[in-house]
Amino acid sequence: MIAIPLQAQFNVPLPLASGAVLDAYELAYETYGTLNAAKSNAVLICHALNASHHVAGIYAGQSDSEGWWDSMIGPGKSVDTNQFFVIGVNNLGSCFGSTGPLSMNPATHLPYGADFPLVTVEDWVDSQAQLLDFLGIETVAAVMGGSLGGMQALCWSYRYPQRIRHAIVIAAAPNLSAQNIAFNEVARQAIMTDPDFHDGHFAQHHTLPKNGLAVARMIGHITYISDDQMESKFGRELRDGKKFSFAPEFQIESYLRYQGEKFSQYYDANTYLRVTKALDYFDPAAQYDGDLAVALSPASAKFLVISFTTDWRFSPTRSREMVKALLDEKKAVTYTEIDAPHGHDAFLLNHPQYHAVVRTYFTHQVQP
Amino acid sequence: MIAIPLQAQFNVPLPLASGAVLDAYELAYETYGTLNAAKSNAVLICHALNASHHVAGIYAGQSDSEGWWDSMIGPGKSVDTNQFFVIGVNNLGSCFGSTGPLSMNPATHLPYGADFPLVTVEDWVDSQAQLLDFLGIETVAAVMGGSLGGMQALCWSYRYPQRIRHAIVIAAAPNLSAQNIAFNEVARQAIMTDPDFHDGHFAQHHTLPKNGLAVARMIGHITYISDDQMESKFGRELRDGKKFSFAPEFQIESYLRYQGEKFSQYYDANTYLRVTKALDYFDPAAQYDGDLAVALSPASAKFLVISFTTDWRFSPTRSREMVKALLDEKKAVTYTEIDAPHGHDAFLLNHPQYHAVVRTYFTHQVQP
Repeated sequence: MIAIPLQAQFNVPLPLASGAVLDAYELAYETYGTLNAAKSNAVLICHALNASHHVAGIYAGQSDSEGWWDSMIGPGKSVDTNQFFVIGVNNLGSCFGSTGPLSMNPATHLPYGADFPLVTVEDWVDSQAQLLDFLGIETVAAVMGGSLGGMQALCWSYRYPQRIRHAIVIAAAPNLSAQNIAFNEVARQAIMTDPDFHDGHFAQHHTLPKNGLAVARMIGHITYISDDQMESKFGRELRDGKKFSFAPEFQIESYLRYQGEKFSQYYDANTYLRVTKALDYFDPAAQYDGDLAVALSPASAKFLVISFTTDWRFSPTRSREMVKALLDEKKAVTYTEIDAPHGHDAFLLNHPQYHAVVRTYFTHQVQP
Repeated sequence: MIAIPLQAQFNVPLPLASGAVLDAYELAYETYGTLNAAKSNAVLICHALNASHHVAGIYAGQSDSEGWWDSMIGPGKSVDTNQFFVIGVNNLGSCFGSTGPLSMNPATHLPYGADFPLVTVEDWVDSQAQLLDFLGIETVAAVMGGSLGGMQALCWSYRYPQRIRHAIVIAAAPNLSAQNIAFNEVARQAIMTDPDFHDGHFAQHHTLPKNGLAVARMIGHITYISDDQMESKFGRELRDGKKFSFAPEFQIESYLRYQGEKFSQYYDANTYLRVTKALDYFDPAAQYDGDLAVALSPASAKFLVISFTTDWRFSPTRSREMVKALLDEKKAVTYTEIDAPHGHDAFLLNHPQYHAVVRTYFTHQVQP
């Protein structure tokens, strides 16, 4: 399946949760499959921290350019693009084509950098609703996402209840725990204290806060993998014996340094700060005295909620909180805990039971 | 109880595991209580990552200068200094008085900085044995420590089996897991990529890698506290509402930044690197094909092993590995899992059941 990146331009001002207003913005998106005549078969995929609108397929002539959820989405796959019109969208504030800190600030004709406003999950959902309008779609069959993407699917369910028939919320949480926020804050501190960060205006200083970004990514990466998985993949294996130096000696050190280095070469530091902050802020129950059931009560969608046993970032306990709140409000919920060893990252992987659950749900519940 | 910091000077060369040799070195230490005529009542306390020889009591005229284990050790306390002669020692390579990276390198008449050799748990134990010789003590009643201190107590048991009657190993592990090493490595990267680190020769550049140290400490701190404890202490509480900025907003953010900032003002970066590396390297079973029982077989001490239910840095599972290995070798072991909410830090706290277990063990098993 060949993917084609597209851009949608919006000139209607978008008011943000922070009070700021974006007068104009673009969203990068891709679509797979065909919108049916009734316009009833659209599935919106929301992405997590560092992913993008490139959800499935490959770019022409680039055989190794699979979308980040290509194992899940495509012709004949669990989310079958022969049946559904799947939309991938890059979030506002990201660095892969949608308007964000790397974009030109029309007021200064310089990159926004640190001047790009903070955005929230609600802002993303509002801009995604604009994209649906742009595509002429009133109601989607489903909004689906993992991790932060799952939070967006949840947000869709109560913010635009009439526009979504199913919310598929995978490896997510109804808000971040103190420990989740703590990890995000350490990552932000690593970036913000990098002298090459220049208060977010590093583009104007012709620098990149690569060291900070690499450390931030390393911290994040530890939380994406289960303790057991890290142990079985790397254990205490040394690359080449004890060297009594601070060069990477254990395999896990090399792996993490490589991940950090790679990430620092393609990801924008200002985006990282904003995405982690959107995670920290997400808390639908907050304005209802912590009552998640009340927060979710406007939803009319049906729900598929999936968690993974070894996910210690957003553990099954957090998914059960959502399921409990939905059941309290008598919503239709399917819930599965998948026994997977991989930790949080499991939502990205091709786990047979997990994919079978999604396939079954799309076949029997969602329908085009 | 008034504590008096002391220095012991050693001029016998100390061969280190790395192959380096320290021709001369000093150890900072303190003692509490009185050595009996039989010299049979000495208890050596080994410290963890950022602690020191100042284990108990206060310094004259400084009422807020309690030693780090003052709740545990003192007259009438669980480790009763009316009965025992307790020795606290600052590890070689530390920054609180023993020879380390901050000390003058006799070869250059400049601070060692990055030129200070890497040290291991075995090196520490060897230097502590020298300190016992210096104090005229052949055999200690007990060696006791928590976390990295517990590893030293374990190491004593098989490295100097004739010199130790009891090993008290608290909140420790027989080696680090891949995840443990991963956290250490991220902390080291935060320090080493701080431009003020200057490859460890920051003293000569009149800088301090404070930002890197602060981030390192923040990472560590997250792993010292249980998820639940962090949740109940901080939760999602905001200091002053959502500000849509990157200033600290959540209480947990302020707390971590404060801890990082405080630590960066008193701890040496080169020491931090070396202590984390000593942790990574510790693995008595490694030279016996991973067979911990064989590694511990030379021990003739009796053991008290204690773990804490919510410790996710060195979980009870890791303590059970040690207990299992000791039992396989028919050693005398007392083992307790303390139901405490605090996570790894519990070993430093005044938990009644925990302290009662230690008191009972000292009263009935150790004996002066």
